[in-house]
Amino acid sequence: MQYDLNPVGEMRLLSPLEVEQLQQSANSELYQLYRNCSLAVLNVGSDTDDAEAIYQRYRNFDIQVLKRERGVKLNLVNPPKHAFVDGKIIRGIAEQLSAVLRDILFISNRYMCMPSAQSSNLATHIVFDIIRNANVIKPDAEPNLITCWGGHSINDIEYKYTKEVGYQLGLRGINICTGCGPGAMKGPMKGATFGHAKQRNYQGRYIGLTEPSIIAAEPPNPIVNELVIMPDIEKRLEAFVRLSHGLIIFPGGAGTAEELLFVLGILLNPANRQQKLPIVLTGPKQSEQYFRELDEFIGKNLGPQAQSLYTIIIDNEREVAQYLQSKIASVINYRKAVGDAYHYNWSLHIEEEFQQPFEPNHDNMASLKIEKNMPVGELTANLRRVFSGIVAGNVKPDWVKQIREKGPYQISGNKEIMTDMDNLLSSFVKQQRMKLPGSKYVPCYQIVSDNE
Amino acid sequence: MQYDLNPVGEMRLLSPLEVEQLQQSANSELYQLYRNCSLAVLNVGSDTDDAEAIYQRYRNFDIQVLKRERGVKLNLVNPPKHAFVDGKIIRGIAEQLSAVLRDILFISNRYMCMPSAQSSNLATHIVFDIIRNANVIKPDAEPNLITCWGGHSINDIEYKYTKEVGYQLGLRGINICTGCGPGAMKGPMKGATFGHAKQRNYQGRYIGLTEPSIIAAEPPNPIVNELVIMPDIEKRLEAFVRLSHGLIIFPGGAGTAEELLFVLGILLNPANRQQKLPIVLTGPKQSEQYFRELDEFIGKNLGPQAQSLYTIIIDNEREVAQYLQSKIASVINYRKAVGDAYHYNWSLHIEEEFQQPFEPNHDNMASLKIEKNMPVGELTANLRRVFSGIVAGNVKPDWVKQIREKGPYQISGNKEIMTDMDNLLSSFVKQQRMKLPGSKYVPCYQIVSDNE
Amino acid sequence: MQYDLNPVGEMRLLSPLEVEQLQQSANSELYQLYRNCSLAVLNVGSDTDDAEAIYQRYRNFDIQVLKRERGVKLNLVNPPKHAFVDGKIIRGIAEQLSAVLRDILFISNRYMCMPSAQSSNLATHIVFDIIRNANVIKPDAEPNLITCWGGHSINDIEYKYTKEVGYQLGLRGINICTGCGPGAMKGPMKGATFGHAKQRNYQGRYIGLTEPSIIAAEPPNPIVNELVIMPDIEKRLEAFVRLSHGLIIFPGGAGTAEELLFVLGILLNPANRQQKLPIVLTGPKQSEQYFRELDEFIGKNLGPQAQSLYTIIIDNEREVAQYLQSKIASVINYRKAVGDAYHYNWSLHIEEEFQQPFEPNHDNMASLKIEKNMPVGELTANLRRVFSGIVAGNVKPDWVKQIREKGPYQISGNKEIMTDMDNLLSSFVKQQRMKLPGSKYVPCYQIVSDNE
Amino acid sequence: MQYDLNPVGEMRLLSPLEVEQLQQSANSELYQLYRNCSLAVLNVGSDTDDAEAIYQRYRNFDIQVLKRERGVKLNLVNPPKHAFVDGKIIRGIAEQLSAVLRDILFISNRYMCMPSAQSSNLATHIVFDIIRNANVIKPDAEPNLITCWGGHSINDIEYKYTKEVGYQLGLRGINICTGCGPGAMKGPMKGATFGHAKQRNYQGRYIGLTEPSIIAAEPPNPIVNELVIMPDIEKRLEAFVRLSHGLIIFPGGAGTAEELLFVLGILLNPANRQQKLPIVLTGPKQSEQYFRELDEFIGKNLGPQAQSLYTIIIDNEREVAQYLQSKIASVINYRKAVGDAYHYNWSLHIEEEFQQPFEPNHDNMASLKIEKNMPVGELTANLRRVFSGIVAGNVKPDWVKQIREKGPYQISGNKEIMTDMDNLLSSFVKQQRMKLPGSKYVPCYQIVSDNE
Repeated sequence: MQYDLNPVGEMRLLSPLEVEQLQQSANSELYQLYRNCSLAVLNVGSDTDDAEAIYQRYRNFDIQVLKRERGVKLNLVNPPKHAFVDGKIIRGIAEQLSAVLRDILFISNRYMCMPSAQSSNLATHIVFDIIRNANVIKPDAEPNLITCWGGHSINDIEYKYTKEVGYQLGLRGINICTGCGPGAMKGPMKGATFGHAKQRNYQGRYIGLTEPSIIAAEPPNPIVNELVIMPDIEKRLEAFVRLSHGLIIFPGGAGTAEELLFVLGILLNPANRQQKLPIVLTGPKQSEQYFRELDEFIGKNLGPQAQSLYTIIIDNEREVAQYLQSKIASVINYRKAVGDAYHYNWSLHIEEEFQQPFEPNHDNMASLKIEKNMPVGELTANLRRVFSGIVAGNVKPDWVKQIREKGPYQISGNKEIMTDMDNLLSSFVKQQRMKLPGSKYVPCYQIVSDNE
Repeated sequence: MQYDLNPVGEMRLLSPLEVEQLQQSANSELYQLYRNCSLAVLNVGSDTDDAEAIYQRYRNFDIQVLKRERGVKLNLVNPPKHAFVDGKIIRGIAEQLSAVLRDILFISNRYMCMPSAQSSNLATHIVFDIIRNANVIKPDAEPNLITCWGGHSINDIEYKYTKEVGYQLGLRGINICTGCGPGAMKGPMKGATFGHAKQRNYQGRYIGLTEPSIIAAEPPNPIVNELVIMPDIEKRLEAFVRLSHGLIIFPGGAGTAEELLFVLGILLNPANRQQKLPIVLTGPKQSEQYFRELDEFIGKNLGPQAQSLYTIIIDNEREVAQYLQSKIASVINYRKAVGDAYHYNWSLHIEEEFQQPFEPNHDNMASLKIEKNMPVGELTANLRRVFSGIVAGNVKPDWVKQIREKGPYQISGNKEIMTDMDNLLSSFVKQQRMKLPGSKYVPCYQIVSDNE
Repeated sequence: MQYDLNPVGEMRLLSPLEVEQLQQSANSELYQLYRNCSLAVLNVGSDTDDAEAIYQRYRNFDIQVLKRERGVKLNLVNPPKHAFVDGKIIRGIAEQLSAVLRDILFISNRYMCMPSAQSSNLATHIVFDIIRNANVIKPDAEPNLITCWGGHSINDIEYKYTKEVGYQLGLRGINICTGCGPGAMKGPMKGATFGHAKQRNYQGRYIGLTEPSIIAAEPPNPIVNELVIMPDIEKRLEAFVRLSHGLIIFPGGAGTAEELLFVLGILLNPANRQQKLPIVLTGPKQSEQYFRELDEFIGKNLGPQAQSLYTIIIDNEREVAQYLQSKIASVINYRKAVGDAYHYNWSLHIEEEFQQPFEPNHDNMASLKIEKNMPVGELTANLRRVFSGIVAGNVKPDWVKQIREKGPYQISGNKEIMTDMDNLLSSFVKQQRMKLPGSKYVPCYQIVSDNE
Repeated sequence: MQYDLNPVGEMRLLSPLEVEQLQQSANSELYQLYRNCSLAVLNVGSDTDDAEAIYQRYRNFDIQVLKRERGVKLNLVNPPKHAFVDGKIIRGIAEQLSAVLRDILFISNRYMCMPSAQSSNLATHIVFDIIRNANVIKPDAEPNLITCWGGHSINDIEYKYTKEVGYQLGLRGINICTGCGPGAMKGPMKGATFGHAKQRNYQGRYIGLTEPSIIAAEPPNPIVNELVIMPDIEKRLEAFVRLSHGLIIFPGGAGTAEELLFVLGILLNPANRQQKLPIVLTGPKQSEQYFRELDEFIGKNLGPQAQSLYTIIIDNEREVAQYLQSKIASVINYRKAVGDAYHYNWSLHIEEEFQQPFEPNHDNMASLKIEKNMPVGELTANLRRVFSGIVAGNVKPDWVKQIREKGPYQISGNKEIMTDMDNLLSSFVKQQRMKLPGSKYVPCYQIVSDNE
């Protein structure tokens, strides 16, 4: 089966020169990435996080970028059938396919001749440029975006809780941003749609920020009505924190820990002491222990200042929404006071150690320095990298393959921290937060304490 | 707790004279009706069809119509708490409360001095005027409204099926009209919201048509974004058929049978022979038997011509949607050909016997003539009245009270038809279609055959 | 030439019953009125105020109200050609034709069985109902409507001045309401369109309020994008004052004097002492004498309190706009304080003597009591009637005919007032404010002092 | 007087990196250009084409690009007072100022490191990129843009005629593009606003395409609601022909001749033989001679094929509009057939000789080859350059200065063509088409025939 598709949105307006560049990119090493992201988007609603399985199932799938007098056309070969209604592609999927074209092929052309080691300024500019190019910043809309982080693999009680929190946020007119996959990334969006609908709010925004290596394992859920594919996990995380007026951490695994460490590391920077960015850790009664463990880990290893940056609310969806709504006002007041934009947090200072892409190969993972007497920012940055690597080893196809070939990552460092981390990770495993249930989880890491 | 509320929509613009009339109405016998409908709307999301129970629970609830220099204000005393978010009424509920004010108090003033025995022309005008006044006719929108009829008490498999049909309709851009309560009145709307969202259709219409005596038992579900309260069941049914471009009958009880008989009776009228109005009877595999029985009853008693007016589709949601979508085109072509409006079926001829309000008191029920050799139109009209009365005796507070006092309705007529009807009703009872599960159903009728 | 036309706006949605009533009205004595108003609207841009001449020129023009399945259709026979572009009627004219249908035939049905001697409450309700039915009250728009009164026959310098004032108002986002004819009724609208355009304000409102007997002599100018035809001059004047947030009086003749006396008479009522309604009398340097005479007439006969109700600004368009803009804020504050609507002045008290339609037949005109020691409200009301009659005798076809048959009106009263009035009227004549230049003005009145 | 201004439109969303680049540009040699274009825009409504005089009058004017946390701010020092209303800048002017920032400083950064000698592909891409970046291409709008070319200095009868043509176009829903100055660039826009308003079309587009060296002499008229400043005359001309669905040539001087030669030269290219692009030469009765001369010049020097590319319509505004409207349909059909975009003519082939910026210095002007036996495309290209140079020498400040210093351009070539050109130019001078009336025109050129 073949299907021809005119991209929508700004990808409708391309010059011949741009189309040629797109075609060149599409014939380059970017092609696999482009094809796989397109497939992930077409495969919306899939219920597996096994990217390999999806790629296998649709190994006959192909996508071509065709040049037409008026611009570009996409040719789909053997696309998943459920993306179509009566032979016509579903509009939401067409939009997400266009976003893939825009973010993987089009935008990449813009930064092709850029130095790969980017200054902090340039990295920040690129994050903004991609976000702006995707039309996600709407200066005339009310500033009220809450980012929800949390696991793609959560249990039913937790999922229902994330939905209920989303509902309470939606009732208060708040818009939602997530990593755009299933679980805690879908629940808040689904809940918010009901809240928005009850308030007759038809402009509800459900922003999904993803990145090429995770999109197949966590394909955008169908509620996402603004999809952006950031080039790497670091830019994705920067986009989250600059776009948001508040953050919620639901239960999750290594990825959630990575996200929390990212934002804590940034806020611990003395340059950000005045910043306003409310963070709520929340879950149902059953998840209380989860947050206690996480809180303890942070308290012990990053100190009470880090703990003071977030609030834990257990089993009270309404309170979460009321708390964040009240805090958004002070976020805006702060931005007004320092002349910052209401919809993009420019004044937040982000160190390069949180911006430089971290490649989780075995050597890099093994050589991460994790010591007691390190500056807390550096320690947080490295802990973030550890969890980032574990996510990669769990679900990102290239790194899953590396693990298969070379065995688990060796993670070493201060004995006490290593013990704490081992405990935390073990509890993630036990609670089935690493992978979707159904498969037995084989850890992609080994904790090795320094011999002190 | 007291809460003051400015009505929304057109109820914002009232003259002092009109406000005075509203206040007079509100102090008249209409008041109980107005109060109860308002309570039903505030009590959205309730899970009981026992109107009495609701009225008991909120017996301290009160609503007053206040005059202000600029128009009217509503004062709520002890309203249900879940209608509010952080002390502010939910917008959708405020809209529905304004619809109650408009349809129960405001419009009633307009027809106060009208003759109670209305000519067919006048009845038709009143139906239209109420619908138009509620802004439901949008001549610039695409004409694609499907009415879904079916029980408020259906099982989970059936409910899921109605949702799936709604989803398939929504994917095709079709808007939904129902009786606005739970069960088969909610499922299609809920499904359609997902379908619309996936197609990025943010103008989805979920029209609920109800009437004062049923609204408490079947309160508007929260998805309904256009609510109209027609003065009586006959005007409500006329509104359904004139507004719709197609009809779906899901499994249901006496009310659903009433609805089906109403539309069949009208379409059997020779004056309507050319009319296009697709009707689909549909349900999951498990409901097949239900439709076979219904079909048989109609075949035996109204004849094959009546059977030819509908199509039965079992367990195929996509086919239902595809069939109706394809038929809408011919509906529009027909209207174009005869110069009729695309959004309102003026050319449909409706006899007075289907328009005159039928009061289901014991005498009227007992004296309904049901004979083999009657004209089919008249027979259908009377059968419709039988089912209408049974619905009243089941859930409409005034008539439930009558049944309690005087015992069940005595329904008599041709022995064969009576036997068929008894069987049909018994199967409704057995399948728990008469009342929501949880209470034991005590029939409000007795079937008495003639000539025994 | 024949042309069939579907009405636009709400006249698209009519029931068969309503169409029949329209047709009956169209066949009644209302028909001539309806036909003539329709012709006036079709004849937009005409440059004569001689209604008879227009009626003569298009005596073959005819308009029929046809019934169609879907509603009503208008059939035009021999309409003025300049209303069409390539055989299609200009949209603005189609809208104005629909407004004529709505206000002359449709609304009149609503008040057909009303008592002709209306209570003040009822008259006020009717004014509001017509205005609301024409969708002129937009509660969500910013409240900033300025009514401009002034002559249809003004000189070029004055016309340019009215345009410049409109431009300054438009630059400040203010919307314009006038009597909708040429001269001082067109200039401010034209100027405002430029002001609005420069500010990229594309929702500019140009509301024309007219009445059936004047519409042919002062046909709506093409800028009017909301036309309402009030049933009589008194209701038109009430609509002006209740809708406006401020008033401008440009130079004019008897009609302008009538308008000024109307609003002064109402504001002099002690019940309106707290009311905020800024009034500016303004014109170019050359018109200074005109305003001095008018001011003197008011000062001498109505007293300094009347003079304190308005501000005279000569030759300063910007100041006019700045003054009114600053005053609108206090108008809104007042309405907020008393709980009045921002877009409709309900709290303004209007006595019946300003509401009862005055029929300017020779007897009524002759018997108007104009004495020194009358209550000022009553005196103002009668002076208003004198000027109203003179306008009728000048341009309203029925009364022009009466004058032709019976000679000029005899206007009598207190000698001093009569002398003042004679002077004022003579200056109007001398300044060619009574009729458009080109025809010699023959006065339709004779001033007769008492006690001679 | 100082005034701070937040840019509107997309200039609201800039990264710190971009703001820095803007500031660098603003401190570079671009600054004078930026300042002067800003001044031209602020000076809207001025009635002189003497750029020097404007610059002199506002020599104290200054504009600074300031960096703020949230983006960029403009600081105006001593701006023309009439750009403000009650101390607030007029919205339309703020938009045009933002367009200057966007097109002069922001876009120029994007092409800074491009080769100055651009390939045809790249030039075409740049034209498109600037146009797209200015949001001028609206793929969902109806394709109906007519470009009007003609003199900035035309007489009253001609001006009224251009207005009337605009009116007839506006009545037919057609949008207008011009060079955005006074005269024939303003009249059609003004007329179209009336036509659009009568048809209740509030989305009328009045696109002005200008370039830095002409903007002061021909400042954007206030009706222009989309302003784009193309980097040079050649890109401006390419933008005109690719954006338009038809062209009108009103009477004008050297600039108008340049424009006509540009489009004829392109359409004479065999690669464009199938192209559809209707061209109408039109003016009032009084201008007939003008068009006869122009037509004769083209016939004699470029041949009858060139003449066949346009239609001359004298004194018939309605016919012009009807002709173009009917031709737009075939333009769209052609684009559909070849798969071209409806809103941008990609398939038009433009040779580099029409794209390379021509610098009209004395040497370049003197060495232009103009011979009888040249290929017609090349001849047309060079004739275009001659007229382009004369426009520069007439009104573009830098070249006016060159002429003052070095005397008139020496233009030489085939004797016969030179004689024809001399006659044509003389008639332009005689008809006061070279400069606005009031100043005596001193030719900036001398025609020198080759000595054959």
